[in-house]
Amino acid sequence: MGFVINPTILNEGALMLEEKSGYSGVRKIAEKVMRDIEFVFGVRPTSTEEIDQLSSCAVIYGTIGHSPVLDGLSALGLIDLAEIRGKNEVYLFQIIDAPWDGVDKALVIAGSDKRGTIYGLFHLSETLGVSPFVDWNDVLPRRRDEFALEDEHKYVSKEPSVRYRGFFINDEWPAFGAWCHHRFGGFNAEAYEHVFELLLRLKGNYLWPAMWSARFYDDGPGLANAKLADEYGVIMGASHHEPCLRQGEEYKYLRGRDSVYGDAWNFRTNEEGITRFWADGLKRSGRFENVITVGMRGEADTAIMGEKATLADNISLLRDVLRAQSRLIQEHVDPERKEVPRMLALYKEVEPFYYGDEKTPGLIGSEELENVILMLCDDNHGNLRTLPTEEMRAHKGGYGMYYHFDYHGGPISYEWVNSSYLPKIWEQMSMAYDFGVRELWMVNVGDICTQEFPLAYFLDLAYDFEQWGTSAINRTQEYTHQWVERQFKGVCEEADLSKIHRILDGYTKIAHNRRPEAMNADVYHPVHYGESDRLLAEIETLMADADELYGKIDEAAMPGFFSLVYYPAMANLNLQKMQLLAGKNQVAARLNLMEANRLSEQIRACLERDRELVDEYHTLGGGKWYGMGLSEHIGFTNWNEDECRNPILMQVMPARKPRLMVSVDGTDQRSEGSRWHVHRLQMRDFRRPDVTEASFTIWSISDLEAPYEINCEAPWLSCSSYKGVLDGVSQAAEKIRVRIDRSQMGEETEATITVKVPGGVVTIAVDAELPDLSGLPERTFVDVDGYVAIEAEHFCAKYDVERPDAAAGFQVIDGYGKTLSAVKVFPTTRYFTAGEDAPYLEYQFVVPKAGAYEVELYMQPSNPVTTDNTIYYGLQANDRPIEVRNAVPMGQSVGDSNLAWAAGVLNNVRRQSSEIVCHVGLNKVRVYAVSPGFVLEKLVIYPAGKKPPESYLGPAESYYVGKIG
Amino acid sequence: MGFVINPTILNEGALMLEEKSGYSGVRKIAEKVMRDIEFVFGVRPTSTEEIDQLSSCAVIYGTIGHSPVLDGLSALGLIDLAEIRGKNEVYLFQIIDAPWDGVDKALVIAGSDKRGTIYGLFHLSETLGVSPFVDWNDVLPRRRDEFALEDEHKYVSKEPSVRYRGFFINDEWPAFGAWCHHRFGGFNAEAYEHVFELLLRLKGNYLWPAMWSARFYDDGPGLANAKLADEYGVIMGASHHEPCLRQGEEYKYLRGRDSVYGDAWNFRTNEEGITRFWADGLKRSGRFENVITVGMRGEADTAIMGEKATLADNISLLRDVLRAQSRLIQEHVDPERKEVPRMLALYKEVEPFYYGDEKTPGLIGSEELENVILMLCDDNHGNLRTLPTEEMRAHKGGYGMYYHFDYHGGPISYEWVNSSYLPKIWEQMSMAYDFGVRELWMVNVGDICTQEFPLAYFLDLAYDFEQWGTSAINRTQEYTHQWVERQFKGVCEEADLSKIHRILDGYTKIAHNRRPEAMNADVYHPVHYGESDRLLAEIETLMADADELYGKIDEAAMPGFFSLVYYPAMANLNLQKMQLLAGKNQVAARLNLMEANRLSEQIRACLERDRELVDEYHTLGGGKWYGMGLSEHIGFTNWNEDECRNPILMQVMPARKPRLMVSVDGTDQRSEGSRWHVHRLQMRDFRRPDVTEASFTIWSISDLEAPYEINCEAPWLSCSSYKGVLDGVSQAAEKIRVRIDRSQMGEETEATITVKVPGGVVTIAVDAELPDLSGLPERTFVDVDGYVAIEAEHFCAKYDVERPDAAAGFQVIDGYGKTLSAVKVFPTTRYFTAGEDAPYLEYQFVVPKAGAYEVELYMQPSNPVTTDNTIYYGLQANDRPIEVRNAVPMGQSVGDSNLAWAAGVLNNVRRQSSEIVCHVGLNKVRVYAVSPGFVLEKLVIYPAGKKPPESYLGPAESYYVGKIG
Repeated sequence: MGFVINPTILNEGALMLEEKSGYSGVRKIAEKVMRDIEFVFGVRPTSTEEIDQLSSCAVIYGTIGHSPVLDGLSALGLIDLAEIRGKNEVYLFQIIDAPWDGVDKALVIAGSDKRGTIYGLFHLSETLGVSPFVDWNDVLPRRRDEFALEDEHKYVSKEPSVRYRGFFINDEWPAFGAWCHHRFGGFNAEAYEHVFELLLRLKGNYLWPAMWSARFYDDGPGLANAKLADEYGVIMGASHHEPCLRQGEEYKYLRGRDSVYGDAWNFRTNEEGITRFWADGLKRSGRFENVITVGMRGEADTAIMGEKATLADNISLLRDVLRAQSRLIQEHVDPERKEVPRMLALYKEVEPFYYGDEKTPGLIGSEELENVILMLCDDNHGNLRTLPTEEMRAHKGGYGMYYHFDYHGGPISYEWVNSSYLPKIWEQMSMAYDFGVRELWMVNVGDICTQEFPLAYFLDLAYDFEQWGTSAINRTQEYTHQWVERQFKGVCEEADLSKIHRILDGYTKIAHNRRPEAMNADVYHPVHYGESDRLLAEIETLMADADELYGKIDEAAMPGFFSLVYYPAMANLNLQKMQLLAGKNQVAARLNLMEANRLSEQIRACLERDRELVDEYHTLGGGKWYGMGLSEHIGFTNWNEDECRNPILMQVMPARKPRLMVSVDGTDQRSEGSRWHVHRLQMRDFRRPDVTEASFTIWSISDLEAPYEINCEAPWLSCSSYKGVLDGVSQAAEKIRVRIDRSQMGEETEATITVKVPGGVVTIAVDAELPDLSGLPERTFVDVDGYVAIEAEHFCAKYDVERPDAAAGFQVIDGYGKTLSAVKVFPTTRYFTAGEDAPYLEYQFVVPKAGAYEVELYMQPSNPVTTDNTIYYGLQANDRPIEVRNAVPMGQSVGDSNLAWAAGVLNNVRRQSSEIVCHVGLNKVRVYAVSPGFVLEKLVIYPAGKKPPESYLGPAESYYVGKIG
Repeated sequence: MGFVINPTILNEGALMLEEKSGYSGVRKIAEKVMRDIEFVFGVRPTSTEEIDQLSSCAVIYGTIGHSPVLDGLSALGLIDLAEIRGKNEVYLFQIIDAPWDGVDKALVIAGSDKRGTIYGLFHLSETLGVSPFVDWNDVLPRRRDEFALEDEHKYVSKEPSVRYRGFFINDEWPAFGAWCHHRFGGFNAEAYEHVFELLLRLKGNYLWPAMWSARFYDDGPGLANAKLADEYGVIMGASHHEPCLRQGEEYKYLRGRDSVYGDAWNFRTNEEGITRFWADGLKRSGRFENVITVGMRGEADTAIMGEKATLADNISLLRDVLRAQSRLIQEHVDPERKEVPRMLALYKEVEPFYYGDEKTPGLIGSEELENVILMLCDDNHGNLRTLPTEEMRAHKGGYGMYYHFDYHGGPISYEWVNSSYLPKIWEQMSMAYDFGVRELWMVNVGDICTQEFPLAYFLDLAYDFEQWGTSAINRTQEYTHQWVERQFKGVCEEADLSKIHRILDGYTKIAHNRRPEAMNADVYHPVHYGESDRLLAEIETLMADADELYGKIDEAAMPGFFSLVYYPAMANLNLQKMQLLAGKNQVAARLNLMEANRLSEQIRACLERDRELVDEYHTLGGGKWYGMGLSEHIGFTNWNEDECRNPILMQVMPARKPRLMVSVDGTDQRSEGSRWHVHRLQMRDFRRPDVTEASFTIWSISDLEAPYEINCEAPWLSCSSYKGVLDGVSQAAEKIRVRIDRSQMGEETEATITVKVPGGVVTIAVDAELPDLSGLPERTFVDVDGYVAIEAEHFCAKYDVERPDAAAGFQVIDGYGKTLSAVKVFPTTRYFTAGEDAPYLEYQFVVPKAGAYEVELYMQPSNPVTTDNTIYYGLQANDRPIEVRNAVPMGQSVGDSNLAWAAGVLNNVRRQSSEIVCHVGLNKVRVYAVSPGFVLEKLVIYPAGKKPPESYLGPAESYYVGKIG
C-alpha cells in the first residue's frame, strides 16, 4: 500500500508529529512544508504533539539529539540513526510500518543536525513537486489527488560537497532596498524570512546580508534578523571587509568624536576604539552560528593603508589585526578559537599581503591563519584568479571562493537582471573545486531577483559536486531541463518546457557574449558577416517564443513564469535588440537611408518595451517584486550607472530626387550606381560549397518612388525579384535573395548581376568558383574569403595522454564559446610540456598562397591560476618547432584601469595572434595544452597583415570538407 | 542749360540718331539702352535715321570708320576723334552744342571700335542709374523726371587693362541647362542674347559657352549663336581643351566608323580625321571674332596620351598638334596667322609638357607658341598656380589666367551658389596681373546665376586695374559699397544699403571659410571656444537683416534683390546654419541631452527652408530663373554630388529619472555631479583682463522636472540665475552667465561655484587671477590658457625695405583671413633673403615657463608661383638664428588625390608648426618674407606637444597689452 498523502488522510488527523524538544526553526520549516502540501492537495495539513491525533499516514521529523521519538523508533529498530549520526547536514528519509497504533505508515525525516532535518523536510516538498521557488517566486506546484511512497522507500542524503554555501545580497540599492522598504518597511526579519527560506530550500546554509546602507544586527529590528537566521540554521557571514560580526555601516553609524569606538577606521591610530568595536560585535553576535570574517580593509572598498605604505607596513598591520581578532574571538566567542569558523578574504589588494613578494614574506602559512578559511575570489566578472597550488592545498582551514553574478564596479557594473551563463559557472567553479576550493562558496547575487536560475545551479553544484561538477561535463543542459521541469511541469506541456529551456539557455548565452549594461550600438558589427542581423533573428525567435508562452500561461502560474523566465529573458533580449538596432540605425543614417527612420522607431519601441517590462514586473503578484527592476541598465558610460545614455535615434531627411543604394549583404560594399564612383561590387558567397543563397539589398535614399531593374544572364543564378519600386516610406529597403543552381552551371563560374537604379547601374560580380577539394581529407577547412575560421571543436585530430596514472586530454565544453563551443584540458589542475607530455588538437586547412599567415586564437579571458601571470599554450604550424606562448598579454592584470583585462571581461573573449608560415595547399596547426586555464574557442587564420573585416564575434566558420551544408 | 533727357524731350522727337553705316550690333545695343531709358522715365525713346526728326536733345552714337556723322562732327571741330582713334575699346562721351538746327544739345558717343561704342552706349545707361543687371536680374533703375549733363561734360574712356575679359559657362547641368531649355527651348541665341548683354554691360568681351552637352555652333539653331555673338562684338573662345573653334561635344556628335572625322580623338591614330574636324571648324567659325584655342587634350578632362606615354612622347605629340593647327589657321582663317588671337591652356597635365623636365625640354619658347596667349590657371579653387617668371614675361603672346568661381571636380565641387570672396579674388588676380598676366582673364562662373557680384568685380578689375588692382589694396569694401548702391540705391534707404553690403560681405566671408558643398557637421567645432555658437550668432544676425530687407523691398525690386542678394546669401547661410546645428546636435545626442531634440527640429526646419528658397527662386519673376537652383549642395561625400547626404537628425530618449548635466561653455568639460566621476570643472575665462562675462550651461537629460541650485560665496562673481527647474521639453537647457566685478576683488582670485543637480554637486573652480602686465610693452600677448593666439595684423613692429628702387613691406589685407585679416608683402613679385633684404613683422608675447614651444602659422593655402614647389618664409624666435621654412608641405602638389592640397583648399587654410625656444616672460617672434605667395593670417604659440583644443578656426585671439576689452 505504501505511504500515502491525499485529502482523506489530511482530513483524518494530524499529518505531522511535532516534538517539544525539537528545534523551533525546524518546526517553522515544517509549517512551510505543510503550506506546500496545502498547495498540492488543497487541504491544509495539521501537526500535533500527540501521537494519537496523527492520521494513518504520518510524518515524523526530528533531529538527532533533539528527538526522543526518533530515539524511540531507533530503539525499536524501525530506523537506523547510525547512518546519519555525526554527519554534516544529512537526513534520513524513510517509510516505516506502523510505528504506533493508528499510524499505518510513517514517513520519518531524521536529520543529523538542524539543517539536515530542514533539508529533509524540504525534500518532502520537492518530492511532492513543490519548487524551491514556491515562496520567493510564487511558483505553484501541480495539484495532485494523491501522493504515495513505497513501503521500502528509504533515502539517506549525502553530505554537501562544500561546507559553507551561500549568497551575498549586495549593491542593494535601488532594487533590493526599495523592495524591502516598500514591502516590509525595512531590511527586517520579515524580509529576511523570505531570504532564509529561499536559501534553505536551495540547500544553501550561509548568507552575507545587504550592507550598503543596511545593518543586519540592528535592522531586525534589533537582533531579530540574527535570531531568526540562527533559529533557521542560517549561518551568517559578512562581506570580505566586515570583520568580527560587525557591518561597515555600523561603524559609520556609531563612530564620532565622543564615541567609545573613536572616529577612525584605522587600527594604527584608533586601535582601542576599533578593538572595542569588534569586541562588542563578537559579544553581541558571537552566540549565533557564524563564519566570522577576519582581517581588515579600508572603508568602501579602499586599501587598508595609504598610498605611501610599503608592502611590509601593510603586512605587519594585517598581522597585528589578525592577532587582535584572534584574541577577541577566543575571549568573547569560544576559548577554543580554532574551532570557530573564520574566514579571511584574499580579495583585491589583500591578495598581495597574503603572497608577499621576493623580499617581504606574506601572511601565507602564518600561525594567525591556522584553521582560517582563506577565501579567494574571481575577478568580479566570473573569471577565477589565483587558486591554491598543490602545496597550498594542505592549509587546514581550507579555501573559499567568492564569485560574482552581479557586480558594482569597473570596467562596467552588471546589476540589473541575470546575465550569467551556466557553462561558464560550471567551468570556473569546477576548476575551483578541482584546485581544492571546497570549504566555502559564496556568490554575489546583487538583489537576488532574476538570479534564481544560476543561483540554484551554483548551490546545487556546491551541494552535490559529484552530480554536477567536473565529472559531469556538458550537463548544464540536463540541469536546465530538470530545473525547468521542476518549476513548470505542472503548468506547461512538454513542448513548452523545451521552449522555456531554450529561452533560458538562449538569453543567458547572449548575455554571456555581452552583458546588458555593457551593450551598446558599437559592440556587434552592424554589417560585416551579417553579425547583427543574425543575432537579431535569434533574439526575435526567442522573444516570439517567450511571448507565445506568455499568452498561454494561466494567471496563477504567471508570477513564477514572469519572474523566473519571461522578465529576465525579455528584458535582456529587448535591450540587446535595442542596441543592435541602434548600430544598424547609425549605419543607415550615415548613408542617408530611409530605413534609418524605421529603425529609429523600432529603437524607440524597444525603450518603451523596456519600461513596460519593468512596470509589469513591479505590479505583478500584487506588486510583490516592486523595486526589483529599478536598476539603471542602458548604455553605461562609466563603471556605474551615472551618466548612462539611451541609444541615439538617428533619423534622415529624404533626398530631393529618387535615389537608391545597393549593398552586398554581409559586406560594406555599396553603390548608388554612379559612373564616377564605385559601381562594381563583389559577391563571393557562392565560393562556399555549402552556400546556395546569398543576398544584396536595395535601399531608398528619398521618399520618392524609385524603380530598380535587375538583370542577370547566367541561367544558374536567380533573384527573388527583378523589378520593383521603392518609395522610402512603406518600402524603404528590399532584400534581393540570389539563389544558385549548381546543376545548371557549365564551365562558367562567374556572372554579373546588374541593378539599374536612378543613379546609374550597379554591377555585382558573382564569383561562384568552387574550391578544389579533391583529395583533401575530412575536416579540412578551405579559404575562399581570404581567411579560414575554425571552431575549436572542429579539430581533425586529438591527442590525449593515455597513461593510466596521468590520463589527460582536451574535451569539448558545449555552448561555451561565443559562437559554438570551447575546448579545455582535463584534469584542469595539470601542467604539461608541449611536445612531450602535452595533449594537443590538430587543425587542417588549405590556403591559396604560401607565405606568412597569422593565427588568431579566440580564448576565454581566463586569469592565471598562479601569481606568475602566465597561461601558456603551444602552437605549431606544419613541421615547424612548437612555439610556446603566454595567452596573458604583457602587463595585463586584474584591475579596473587595466585596459586589456577590462576589454577581456567586457568582450568575454581574449584574442591573440601568432605568425606562422603556410605552404600552398594543405597545412596543419596544432594547439598544445601547457598551463591550466587555457580555454580555446576559435581559430582564425589569414595572410599576415590582412585581417578579415572586424566584427565582435569574428568571421563565421569557414567551409570544411565533410561539412553538411 | 546742358543736355537733358526728360519725358518732354522724349515725346518731342527721336532721341537717337541711327546710321545705316553703323554696326547692326551697336544698333541693337542702342535699342537696349532705349529700353533702359524707358525704365527711367516711363517713356520709350525712339531713334531715327533723319536728323530733322531728332528732338532738341539728341544722342549721336557711332564707331570710327562706320559713321559719316561722326566724321562730319569731327570735321566741324565739335569733337576730336583723334582722342580715341586706334585705341582698343575706347569711347568718347561728350556733350556738344547745336550740331544741327533743331538740336540744341547732343550727346556724342563715339567708339574707337565696335565694343568701344557699345561700352559708350551702356555708359549712358549707367550714368542714368541703370544697373548692368537690369536685364539679367530685373534690377530696375530709380525713376527720374529729368536727367541732365553739363555743357562741358566730356569723358574719354580708358583702354581696358586686360585685353580679353570674360567668363565661362560651365558644368551647365542641371542649372543653366534646365534654365535654357525651360525658358528658351535650348542653348540657343534667345538664351545667349541675355548672356551677351550681361557680358557687355559688365564690360567683358570674351565668352566660353556651355559645353557639357551643348554645341554653341549648332544650337543657335545653326550658327545663330555665333552670328549673334559676332554681331554684338562678343569674342568667342572655347574651353581649354576645345581647339580650333570646335566643341568637344561636336566630335562626340560627329564621330563614327563612317564619319569623315574618324572615330578616335587621337592625333596619332586618326590624324586625318582630327585634322579635317579642326579644318572644318575653322572654316565654319573662323570668320567671327575669336580667340582660338590651340593644343589638344584627352576627352572629358583626361590626359592626352595613355599612362605609358613618356613626357617626351607627350611633348612631341603636342608639338605636332600645334604645328598642324598653325597650318590650318593660316589656311582657313588668316594667312597672317600670327595676327590671329590664339590661346594655349597650360592647364592640369599640359603644364608639365610646357615646362618639361631636366632631361626633356618642354614647349616653353617654341616657335609654335609665338604670339600664342599662354593661359595659366588656378588650382580650380581660387589659388593661382605657377606664374610667369621674369624671363617668361617676355613671351610676346602674353599670358592669360583661367580662374574659378565654380568648379566641378575634386576634392569637392562648388557649383550651387556664389561662394567667392572679393578679397581673395583681389589678392590672387592682382598678383596674376603683377606677374604679367594681362592678356586674357577668364573666370568659370558655372551657371552664371548668383555669381553676378564677384563676376562684376572680376570684370571691373580686368577692365580697370588701375582703379581696383594692386594699388587699390583694401578697396573691396568700397567696391561692394558702390556695387550695392548701383543696384539698390533706387529702392533702399542708406541704412538698408549698408545692410545689403554687410550681408554680401558676411555671407561670402563665411563661404570663403568653408564652401557650402564642403560644409558638414564635423567642420566647425561644436564646443571648443564656442566656435559654432559664435558663427551661428553671426549667421542669425545676417539672416535677420536679410529677412528684414525682404519684408521692406517692394514687389518690383524683389527679383533683383532676391536673385542678387537674398537668395545667394540666405541659401548659403541657411546651409551653414544647418550643418552647424548638426554638429551641435551630434554632441548633444551623444550626451543624451534633451536639447538634441530641439536641435534636430531646427535642422529639419533648415532643410525645409533650403527647399523653400530654391522654390521661391524658381517661381520668382514668373519663373525667370527656373532651373538655376537645381544643383545639389548638401553634404557632398564625393567630389561631385553623387551620394551626397543630408545631415542626420539625432534624437534622444529621455532618461527615466530627473538628471541634469553642467558644462563649462567653450570647453568640453561636463559633469552630472556624481561623486564617482568628474565633478570639478574649471572656468578660466576671467584670467583675461578683457573678459567680464563667462558662462556655463545646465542641460536636461530627462523630460522630468529637475531642479538646480547655484551657490557662490565670492562677492565679486554673480550668476544670471541661482535656482531653477528644467523640464527637458519647454526648457531643455539654461545658459548661466557669470559676471565678474573686479572692483570687489580683494586678494582672493579664486572662487568656486557649486551647482546642485539631481545627480550630485558640480563644482566650478573659477580662476580669475589676472596676468602680471606690469612693464610689458603695448601689443604684448599674454598666455593665460596654455597658448597665445595672435592675429597676423597685431604685430608689435614692422620692418619695411625703404630703398627707393626696391621698397617693399608687409601690408594688411583687411578681412582676408579666417578670423580677421592677413598680411602679405608688396610688391608681390619680389624674392628676399631673410635677415638681409627681407621685410619682416615682429610679434611679442609672454609665457609662464621656459622651454620648447611650437609656433603654428595659419596661412592662405597659396600654391608656389614657380615649379620648384616652395614658398619660403623665415621664422626667428628671440635672438636665435632665422629658420627658413617652406610653407608647402613635402610632397604636396595640386591634384585631387593629394590630401594635403585637398585639405588646404577645403579648409582654405594652411597650417604649419615650427619649434622655438622661449624664455620665461617676454619673447619675440619675427616672420620674414622670402618667396611670393606667402600670406599669413594668424600665429598660435603653445608649449611643444600641448596643442590647444582642436577647432576649425583655431583658438580665439589672446589678450594683449593695450587691447580694448
